[in-house]
Amino acid sequence: MFISKFAASLIMETIQDIVIVGAGNVGTHLAEIMLEAGFTICQLAERGATIVPGKDLYIMALPDAAMEEALSEMPLKDEMLVHTSGSVPMEILSRYSENTGVFYPLQTFTKGRPIDMKEVPLLIEANRIDNENILVEAAKKISNKVIVADSDRRLSLHIAAVFASNFSNHMYDIARHLMEEQELDFDLLSPLIIETAAKARALGPDKAQTGPAKRNDREVIRKHLDMLKGHEAIKELYKRISDNISEQEK
Amino acid sequence: MFISKFAASLIMETIQDIVIVGAGNVGTHLAEIMLEAGFTICQLAERGATIVPGKDLYIMALPDAAMEEALSEMPLKDEMLVHTSGSVPMEILSRYSENTGVFYPLQTFTKGRPIDMKEVPLLIEANRIDNENILVEAAKKISNKVIVADSDRRLSLHIAAVFASNFSNHMYDIARHLMEEQELDFDLLSPLIIETAAKARALGPDKAQTGPAKRNDREVIRKHLDMLKGHEAIKELYKRISDNISEQEK
Repeated sequence: MFISKFAASLIMETIQDIVIVGAGNVGTHLAEIMLEAGFTICQLAERGATIVPGKDLYIMALPDAAMEEALSEMPLKDEMLVHTSGSVPMEILSRYSENTGVFYPLQTFTKGRPIDMKEVPLLIEANRIDNENILVEAAKKISNKVIVADSDRRLSLHIAAVFASNFSNHMYDIARHLMEEQELDFDLLSPLIIETAAKARALGPDKAQTGPAKRNDREVIRKHLDMLKGHEAIKELYKRISDNISEQEK
Repeated sequence: MFISKFAASLIMETIQDIVIVGAGNVGTHLAEIMLEAGFTICQLAERGATIVPGKDLYIMALPDAAMEEALSEMPLKDEMLVHTSGSVPMEILSRYSENTGVFYPLQTFTKGRPIDMKEVPLLIEANRIDNENILVEAAKKISNKVIVADSDRRLSLHIAAVFASNFSNHMYDIARHLMEEQELDFDLLSPLIIETAAKARALGPDKAQTGPAKRNDREVIRKHLDMLKGHEAIKELYKRISDNISEQEK
């Protein structure tokens, strides 16, 4: 058994030459990070570009809705093919290659903002155990937090990420809106926002929760709702989120 | 006119000796920060303690609901009296002193977590312009961001702070809940949360917004709502916040 494992590791293929399809935020960042990690980026292809054949790994870094059209034009035989989406099942790739998987980085990427990828969780899935081993090996070269997760588990994580990132950012944006009405600069809230994020990390968000809803301070909540008259959508959100927080404290 | 201003500045009182009533998160942090800035903290009083009379400034750092009871027992004549609340009008102090104001730091304080107060906005209000000058002078010794704001404006800022801090933390907490169900460690989301906060600061949250609701990606939203069956409160929040984000993109 020891010998056969050893033999397997000797013949296990490794990934060197990579094609990334999609030159948006995710594609561009992955290209830079993988280049630094010693991989060869043969192509970072804009949408619609002709894709070079015969490389070790094809990474689809396109919006979910654009993926299938791009796949149908790719010159693949059995090359390893992965996507980078939190919400697309791996199975949609099975029509295009026999070696498929997922390479999903749990982070928000912005052009021009460097990311320390070593700390970013990288969720891996593959259609076979040998492919999983190959992808995990490649993933470990760029991240210290490689996690094997099937499509359902990845989708749950994606929903969690929507709350933790997209929705928290929307809370900041409502705050910005309310401040601009008072001709106050949003940047005044920066120390509060940065400290809130750091505190949630240090204590856990359940222990870090503060505010009138947490204290169930109905007098303050009533004042806030009064002030939000004329902002019905924001008022409704205020009420629901406060109820949700108070509910958890019971 | 120049001379009278100059003369006024010569006779303007300044604050040196301070009593802080309330030894919770806000009181304790203010005491440390003001001590470092060169003020004398004569007393940091627990709730119910006997308050020393005759000092330059009395800072109420108690929960809103506990404030009036503590005030009614304070040995004040006309000493300067302020509170630190975002949501309490200055006027409630007028029964207890003729020199009143507000000293509201826009930050979330936690025992044991040091805060760089220089960057924290400090909102000042006072019942007369001479008192305002005295409080602003004191405030500038601890913060680079001193803002004079009346009670209505401060309440608006407090609501903005609730969204930016209490509600974004609740979004993190929902994410934690969803992750724990998958037996995944909340800390996996830390790089995403920290980057989201930093990005909102750098770009503004309107430009930093990403995710399925922003793209109005109904397919992904539908998948997420399907996965949230059995979590009706979370599902309802997901739907409303997504609608709100999509609405803004129109």
